[in-house]
Amino acid sequence: MSKKIGIVGAGTAGLHLGLYLRQHGVDVTIFTDRKPEEYRGMRLLNTVAHHAVTVDRENALGVNHWPNDGYVGHHYFINVPPQPLRFYGDLHAPSRAVDYRIYQPRLMEDFEARGGNIEYREIKGDEVSALSAKFDVMVVCTGKGPFGQMFQHEPAHSPFDRPQRALCVGLFKGIAQRTPKRAVTMYFSPGAGEMIEIPTLTFNGMQNALVIENIIGGDLEILAKTKYDENPRAFLDLLLGKLRKHYPDCADRIDEKEFDLANGPLDLLQGGVTPTVRKSHVKLDGGKLAIALGDVQAVVDPVLGQGANMASYAAIILGEEIVKQEVYDERFVEHVNMRRQDRVLGATRWTNFMMTNLKAMPVELQQFIGALSQNRALADEFTDNFNYPERQWDCFASIERMKAWLERRRPPAGCAEAVNESLVADAA
Amino acid sequence: MSKKIGIVGAGTAGLHLGLYLRQHGVDVTIFTDRKPEEYRGMRLLNTVAHHAVTVDRENALGVNHWPNDGYVGHHYFINVPPQPLRFYGDLHAPSRAVDYRIYQPRLMEDFEARGGNIEYREIKGDEVSALSAKFDVMVVCTGKGPFGQMFQHEPAHSPFDRPQRALCVGLFKGIAQRTPKRAVTMYFSPGAGEMIEIPTLTFNGMQNALVIENIIGGDLEILAKTKYDENPRAFLDLLLGKLRKHYPDCADRIDEKEFDLANGPLDLLQGGVTPTVRKSHVKLDGGKLAIALGDVQAVVDPVLGQGANMASYAAIILGEEIVKQEVYDERFVEHVNMRRQDRVLGATRWTNFMMTNLKAMPVELQQFIGALSQNRALADEFTDNFNYPERQWDCFASIERMKAWLERRRPPAGCAEAVNESLVADAA
Repeated sequence: MSKKIGIVGAGTAGLHLGLYLRQHGVDVTIFTDRKPEEYRGMRLLNTVAHHAVTVDRENALGVNHWPNDGYVGHHYFINVPPQPLRFYGDLHAPSRAVDYRIYQPRLMEDFEARGGNIEYREIKGDEVSALSAKFDVMVVCTGKGPFGQMFQHEPAHSPFDRPQRALCVGLFKGIAQRTPKRAVTMYFSPGAGEMIEIPTLTFNGMQNALVIENIIGGDLEILAKTKYDENPRAFLDLLLGKLRKHYPDCADRIDEKEFDLANGPLDLLQGGVTPTVRKSHVKLDGGKLAIALGDVQAVVDPVLGQGANMASYAAIILGEEIVKQEVYDERFVEHVNMRRQDRVLGATRWTNFMMTNLKAMPVELQQFIGALSQNRALADEFTDNFNYPERQWDCFASIERMKAWLERRRPPAGCAEAVNESLVADAA
Repeated sequence: MSKKIGIVGAGTAGLHLGLYLRQHGVDVTIFTDRKPEEYRGMRLLNTVAHHAVTVDRENALGVNHWPNDGYVGHHYFINVPPQPLRFYGDLHAPSRAVDYRIYQPRLMEDFEARGGNIEYREIKGDEVSALSAKFDVMVVCTGKGPFGQMFQHEPAHSPFDRPQRALCVGLFKGIAQRTPKRAVTMYFSPGAGEMIEIPTLTFNGMQNALVIENIIGGDLEILAKTKYDENPRAFLDLLLGKLRKHYPDCADRIDEKEFDLANGPLDLLQGGVTPTVRKSHVKLDGGKLAIALGDVQAVVDPVLGQGANMASYAAIILGEEIVKQEVYDERFVEHVNMRRQDRVLGATRWTNFMMTNLKAMPVELQQFIGALSQNRALADEFTDNFNYPERQWDCFASIERMKAWLERRRPPAGCAEAVNESLVADAA
C-alpha cells in the first residue's frame, strides 16, 4: 500500500512526523505559509529546550545539527528570606535549546532534501476536508486561527479558561554562562513568579533565554506589559531592577553595559498561554480523519519546557502507527492515543499542577522542595524526569504521592544522605 | 510499606490476583461464601478454556496442575449447503479446559497453602466500605448480587441490554475426541447459532463441553429451555436431533448409547449473558478505592472463550501495579487501566461483533471465513489470536480492516497459497 499523508503546520511536531515518515518511504506533504528564508526576519517564536529524549529522536531522524550546544542540568534558586534556597540536579544526558527561527527552517531543508513536499501557502480551516481527498490521513499540528476550533475542547483536561502567567520571554546577551558546566536555572520568587534561564543557541551565538513567568496582579506582571520598542533603555532598566529584587542570582551574572536583547528588538515575546487539551481527532467531510498533533492537541504554559517535547514524542508515535497500520479509522486513533496519551496528559497535568502550586506554595510542596535541596539523588531524579513528565505526574498527582515519593527514596536509618555541600561545587 | 489487600470473590480473577500477591509477599484476604469442598456438589459454573497466555500465567504462579490436558488447535465447521465448509487452525501452544469445580478449589488450596487468607462468609454489597478500613485497596471480582451495582454501567461499551444467545452449556460423555490431536471445534449454523466443543477435564476424566449458543427465535433456542431433569432421555434425544441437523460433524462422533451428561444432572447450565462493561473503580465511604476486576468489570458471552482469559490478564496487571505502586488513588487506577483496557475492551468488542455478525453473516464476514478456509497460515493466525483479542479487534474493528488484514497476508502473485489439502489430514 502506498501511503500519502498531509500535514498542516511546519512546527516541531509536523517536521518530526514528516521526517520520520520520509525515513520510512511515505509520501508526505507539509502545508505552511512560512518559507525557510522568512524565519530570520520574524519575531521570536518561543523559547524551547529539547530534552535528551527529544534529542535522541533528532539523532534517530538524522537532524541533530547541534550536538555540542546542550546543557547538563538544572540549578534551582528559591528566593526566600533570609537566605535563598539553592540546589542542583543533573540530567542523564544533555538537553539543548536552539532558537526555532534557526531550528525549524533547517529541518524544513532536511525534509525537502529527503523528498518531502512542502506546499507554501495559507490553508484555511475549512480547506482541510477538501485537501483530505488527496491523502490517506490528515494531521493538523498548528493551533493557529481556525485549526484549534476544528478539534473539540476537552474540559476534563483543561482546567483553566485564561493564561495563568503573564509571560515576558526573550533572548538576552550580557548574562554570563555558568561555569564550568552549562546549565538551566529555574528561579522561584514566591508570590511574584518564576523565571527559567536557558542557554540557547541564537543568531548571536550561545546566549540566554529568560522565560519570565509573572503572576497576574503581582510585582512582576509589568514585565509582560512594558514595550521594549517604545524605550529600550527603560525596559532594560525595569527588567534589571526586577531581576535584582526577585532573581538576584541571575542579576549577579549580568554585565549591565552589555545586557540587551541578543540580536535586536525581535528577540522579545510577551503574552500568555491558556493551557488547553483538545480532542485527538475529527472526522472530515468525505470520511477521512484529521488527527490533532502538537499544540493543537495540547498546549501548556512554557514554565516546565514540556510543549515541544511532548509534541515530538507524539509525532514519532503517530509516525510509527501510520507506518505500521493500513487503515486510518477510529481504531487507528485509539492505538495512537493509547501510546501518546500518558505523556501528553502527564506533561499537561504536571505543568498545570505546578502553575497552581508554585503560586499557592502549599506546605507539602515546600517540604518536597526542601527535601530535594537536601538530597542530591532526589534532585537528580526530579531534574531528569523533565524528560518523562508522566513520571512527574506519578509523583505529583496527589499529596500522598508526593510523600510516598520522598519516603521511598529515604536513605536507611543510619546512612548519611548525600550531602548538599557537593552542590555548591557543582553550582559554582 | 506493608500492604494489605482485600478481594471479594474467589473466581479465576480473584485467585490469580491473590496468588500473584502472595508470590510478592503481600498480605491478602479473599472473601467468598463457598468452601473448596462445596464445589463438587454444585451445578456446573461455566465452561472455560484457558488459552496459552493464561496457562503461561498459571505456570508463573506455580498452579498449572494440568500440563498434559491441553488441546492444540481449532477446527471450524460451517454448516452451509451444499457442502459444509471446514478448516483447521493451530494454536502456538496448547489451550486447556478444566471444570471450574475442580480448578477453583484446587487454586484456593494453593492460595491458602501459600499464606493467603480466605474468609468464608457472605459479604453484602454495602459491607465493602466498612471492610475497606482494614485494607489498602479492595478488589471486587464477583458480579453476583449487589456487587455489579457498585460499579457504574459503561454505555459506550455495553451495546446490548439483554442476552444475545440462549445458552445450553454442558459436559457430555460419549463424544469421541478427535484424533490424533486434541482440538476444539467451533461450529456455525447460519440462522440457528454456534456451538463450541471443548475437550475438558471433568470429574469423569477428559470429556467434551458443548457450549451451544442459540439464536433467540431460531430452531435451536429450545435447547436452552428444555429441562434435562424432567426427562433426561427426551432432552438427549432432542439434543441429538438438533446436533444431527445443525452440527453433523459432532453428531457423527457420538456414541448414542453412551451419550449423556458426563457425570450427572448437575453438568448442565442453561440461561444467557448480557454483555456488560462497568466502570473500573469506585471510591468507597472512607476514601479507599474498590477496583472492579473480572466479570464485574466486563462480562462477555462465552462464544469466543474470552471471559476468564481477560479476567486473568487483568488480575496479573492489577497485581503488578499493586506491588509496584504505593498509593492507591485515581492515578493508580489509571495505570491499571492503561495496561488492561485494550485487552479487556478488545475481547468485549470482538465478542460483541461476532455475536451480531455471526447472526447477520454479512458478505464481508463470509469472504473472510472463506479466505481462512483456503489458507492455512491465515487460519493459524486467526486461531492463535484467540490469545490476543486486541489483535482480533485490530482485524474486525471495521470492514476496511477485515479487507486489509486479508490483503496484507495475500501471497505475492505467482506464489501458490498454502493448500488446504493439508487441513484434511490435520482434521482427520
